[in-house]
Amino acid sequence: MSTEQDDREQQLVDRVVASFEAAPDPRLKEVMQALTRHLHAFVREVRLTESEWQQAIGFLTATGHATDQRRQEFILLSDVLGISMQTVTVNNQAYADATEATVFGPFFVDGSPRIEHGGDISFGASGRPCWVEGSVTDTAGEPVAGARIEVWEADEDGFYDVQYGDDRTAARGHLFSDDAGHYRFWAIEPTPYPIPHDGPVGELLNATGRSPMRASHLHFMVEAPSLRTLVTHIFVRGDTLLDRDSVFGVRDSLVKDFQTQPPGTPTPDGRDLAGGAWSRVRFDIVLAPAP
Amino acid sequence: MSTEQDDREQQLVDRVVASFEAAPDPRLKEVMQALTRHLHAFVREVRLTESEWQQAIGFLTATGHATDQRRQEFILLSDVLGISMQTVTVNNQAYADATEATVFGPFFVDGSPRIEHGGDISFGASGRPCWVEGSVTDTAGEPVAGARIEVWEADEDGFYDVQYGDDRTAARGHLFSDDAGHYRFWAIEPTPYPIPHDGPVGELLNATGRSPMRASHLHFMVEAPSLRTLVTHIFVRGDTLLDRDSVFGVRDSLVKDFQTQPPGTPTPDGRDLAGGAWSRVRFDIVLAPAP
Ligand SMILES: [Fe+2]
Ligand SMILES: [Fe+2]
Repeated sequence: MSTEQDDREQQLVDRVVASFEAAPDPRLKEVMQALTRHLHAFVREVRLTESEWQQAIGFLTATGHATDQRRQEFILLSDVLGISMQTVTVNNQAYADATEATVFGPFFVDGSPRIEHGGDISFGASGRPCWVEGSVTDTAGEPVAGARIEVWEADEDGFYDVQYGDDRTAARGHLFSDDAGHYRFWAIEPTPYPIPHDGPVGELLNATGRSPMRASHLHFMVEAPSLRTLVTHIFVRGDTLLDRDSVFGVRDSLVKDFQTQPPGTPTPDGRDLAGGAWSRVRFDIVLAPAP
Repeated sequence: MSTEQDDREQQLVDRVVASFEAAPDPRLKEVMQALTRHLHAFVREVRLTESEWQQAIGFLTATGHATDQRRQEFILLSDVLGISMQTVTVNNQAYADATEATVFGPFFVDGSPRIEHGGDISFGASGRPCWVEGSVTDTAGEPVAGARIEVWEADEDGFYDVQYGDDRTAARGHLFSDDAGHYRFWAIEPTPYPIPHDGPVGELLNATGRSPMRASHLHFMVEAPSLRTLVTHIFVRGDTLLDRDSVFGVRDSLVKDFQTQPPGTPTPDGRDLAGGAWSRVRFDIVLAPAP
């Protein structure tokens, strides 16, 4: 590329950056100037053609038109580009051995049923029963009593209750850690499901040879006073989707051993599963100090 | 930032980049991988907060919903971030003394009226009459005969004919360079106008202290066999908006002297302007070889 060409491109970047110089909000100025620099660097690096620019405008337009009260295609786009997960990562700094965060996802619902220790969050959702237990501590190793532990997951067909089309609540609930910081409950073993892929983002995944499937996971949100709220998942060791989760939510430290118990194995709390198979998993949660 | 934190962020970028590795179209793979790297670099550099991410999703959603058959808010967004102009710049490489390109804009209409040399493209649009003349040559200085010269502009109130709300054609037309490569026609002196600013992009401009105004300009598109099609504008020297054109279309080489003629000055072609003021401008066009 000629020096003249390079100068023209750089001067343009400089002019756009300068146009934000008088923005009254210093943070907005910083964000828009950085966005300008990175977007222009992208266009210059790939030598974006005019027809590719048209395609990009068309894609964003279709994404906008696919978005309504019930469907958020821009969040899906952010998810499959790993931008949602990068935002989570940036806002949950590594701190000692604090449990890692991952994406919140679209299926959380406020006001889930409270269960007692050893209770069952499935509320009739289909799936293999799974005993989940663990502890909540701070990064000094001190037990955290009374932490609010919220859990939610898809059923064995890959659907959350909010996708059933009726008003049922299933496969979600909350409980509080006991005085020793321990918790235990029945759930169902997580199974994979696809993100919505009948829109522009699904077309992008298809065109790039990517799968819409999410690795099997159980959602957690854990809150306690003076500690950083943790939004995370646990994943199933051995799941073949672990290295190609469509939204990049997997962190190695969040992959857990779900131990399948042979049919008839006695359950931890004496629950009668009529001779059926069940599994168990342990998840010890470590909360960072509040920022 | 801790090494652990930096590793987590970089590993995530690497995983998203790797997810596109199997894309069957090598160009799509290259574009998506580069987009991933630049967007993640932006999020990491500004340490985007979760509420800012929410605002960005909301802004894109509003931009999508503002876009319909008649209004393209994503193109406006691209324009005010200088991305449209950067795409033009990348695709019209500097070549010898070839005239610089600038943005196409949304107001071109196919099938404009043909005029003869010395004809008037205003077709009744209001504004001070302006005599436009010049030559078309290639980069070897050879005259280009028969080049198709398309011109269009806003009237003195800042409106294009397509904004009038009726079917009138005004302030647009085309002609062909003569055997010596020369051209000349009557137009109107360009005046400033705002880009549409009653939507999300207008809110962004407002929040960042930027004006929606475009510097005064006259659009040109020049086509000739074996030569690169030139889409450009000429701007008015002395216009106070030159250094803050809302879409960054101004290049120094495109700023021309519009010379105001005192009322009563004889016109080049003897046209009778009833003693009114008029102006004149010269624009010599140099076309690069076709790519
Ligand atoms: Fe989920
Ligand atoms: Fe224009």
